[in-house]
Amino acid sequence: MNEFEIIKHYFTADSGRKDVIMGPGDDCALLQVPAQTLLAVSTDTLVSGVHFFADMEPSALGHKALAVNLSDLAAMGADPRWVSLALTLPAVDEVWIKGFCAGFFELAEYYNVALVGGDMTRGPLSITVTVHGTLPEGKGLRRNGARIGDGIYVTGTLGDAALGLKAALGEARVPAAHLEFVRNKLEHPHPRILAGQALRDIASSALDISDGLAGDLGHIVTASGVRAQLELEQLPLSEAMLASVSREQAWQLALTGGDDYELCFTVPESHRGLLDTALSHCGVKFTRIGRLVPGEPGLELLADGGPCELDLHGWDHFRSRP
Amino acid sequence: MNEFEIIKHYFTADSGRKDVIMGPGDDCALLQVPAQTLLAVSTDTLVSGVHFFADMEPSALGHKALAVNLSDLAAMGADPRWVSLALTLPAVDEVWIKGFCAGFFELAEYYNVALVGGDMTRGPLSITVTVHGTLPEGKGLRRNGARIGDGIYVTGTLGDAALGLKAALGEARVPAAHLEFVRNKLEHPHPRILAGQALRDIASSALDISDGLAGDLGHIVTASGVRAQLELEQLPLSEAMLASVSREQAWQLALTGGDDYELCFTVPESHRGLLDTALSHCGVKFTRIGRLVPGEPGLELLADGGPCELDLHGWDHFRSRP
Repeated sequence: MNEFEIIKHYFTADSGRKDVIMGPGDDCALLQVPAQTLLAVSTDTLVSGVHFFADMEPSALGHKALAVNLSDLAAMGADPRWVSLALTLPAVDEVWIKGFCAGFFELAEYYNVALVGGDMTRGPLSITVTVHGTLPEGKGLRRNGARIGDGIYVTGTLGDAALGLKAALGEARVPAAHLEFVRNKLEHPHPRILAGQALRDIASSALDISDGLAGDLGHIVTASGVRAQLELEQLPLSEAMLASVSREQAWQLALTGGDDYELCFTVPESHRGLLDTALSHCGVKFTRIGRLVPGEPGLELLADGGPCELDLHGWDHFRSRP
Repeated sequence: MNEFEIIKHYFTADSGRKDVIMGPGDDCALLQVPAQTLLAVSTDTLVSGVHFFADMEPSALGHKALAVNLSDLAAMGADPRWVSLALTLPAVDEVWIKGFCAGFFELAEYYNVALVGGDMTRGPLSITVTVHGTLPEGKGLRRNGARIGDGIYVTGTLGDAALGLKAALGEARVPAAHLEFVRNKLEHPHPRILAGQALRDIASSALDISDGLAGDLGHIVTASGVRAQLELEQLPLSEAMLASVSREQAWQLALTGGDDYELCFTVPESHRGLLDTALSHCGVKFTRIGRLVPGEPGLELLADGGPCELDLHGWDHFRSRP
């Protein structure tokens, strides 16, 4: 099959969404944005050898390429609607494409996201996804709304994807019973769409943790002009993490490991009750890990009742994975 | 500068567009789509060594990466509004990035398109752009609206970009006086935004010629279920083309050469007067090159008053440029 036939065969399924006036196959997709909403758009690229191993299972890659983008919609509290997929492949390998599509469309269907267009080109393997969602006017979980006194929260557990990467590279020993869990966290992240939507009227700021908690929380701190005090003992750690590394190593991974795609958000004390109700309603585990305090914008780490120093280099995409 | 500093320095200029509620720097851009409009979205990737030479001047590349995407909006008749840029670079080279931005933003400002987000990653050089525009509800120049009896038209001249590529590869000898012209057509294509907007109420179908007239017109023919009769003598050829190759070679390039980004469109006979007025009003040269006739969907070539056979392989992105 040539480019056009492959696109037609694998990438033009009708999603059934009524807001897709024209899907793939013309010069543009034509989409109906509901009145009184804002359009939310985000783009992320995954490059072979940088963001994933070249031999990564194609269905896991299809899932992850969409998941990391949906995670940005989640971090804004938006409702996912449409996605464009730009796929660059070394060669037309139908088995690979079929696998990729299986992972991609399973997640797309789960969140009722329609593939509305894209491009397929020859070249070194990489995937750029652009997701589109909507938000009620006036809403949106920005980075610059955090205020002194707000609590700092995260969903799920932290550092597991980084531990999974270290295990794959032979840099950490993860007990056999936990290997699948950490690998799954690395390759099948779950975008926190429901949590993001639930936080729309509750959180004062939010983002997703793609580059490590310390670096990402740093964006909230800088944008909002506040100082964050983190209690390291409160960082939510998985059983796999606790069974594999020391407490300090676990904190390090939780603070600096990329690829978690959990949400980090801040909530005014007055909304704590609302928060408990909203997130338990959608079944998402979350943890209070600190608070915003007066002082210079920055991060303060506390452990065992006092200040604590750790090396806090976030994930830098220009540092390659082997 | 690291990734974040470079993005901040080069990619966060305020466009001044009032419909950008939130630009680059958060998890998503937030955009205001006017009531009674449809959102038009298109994505195109350019890969080094496939779509452009690795040593292509960065400002030309910045221009072209945006131009080929705007061309898709033009082909739909849409009003350009916003763009996302996913840039994958082998290394952080500020001189290169500065040049790229010069070309990219010059074109963006010309059409008042705001850069609203994107991604920058390390890897083999490639660029994925997603453009967003709007159309009045019910409008949109689709591929499937052509009817028997409609005339077939193109803007500008055809095949010049392909001739420019052949000249660069040493496969064609272009007289010195015309070299800059063909190189410019290859590296600085101009999206036919104004023509597309003008054609909104006039054309029955349209697309942009990125893969060669024969292949692209083939999409209209297939989608609309019509047969196209092309008069090769009517194909608009530049002086550069006529000075460089034989008549048959020129037709070949005009029919199969990629990268022209002119519009091909069909117009009912009853709208010919409107067409003349609308396109001369926006100063765009256009030519009638054939018409749609009854018969099996397909292309029929006529020359010297009779049928003519030519090899019509379109541009296939999976066939690499050297």
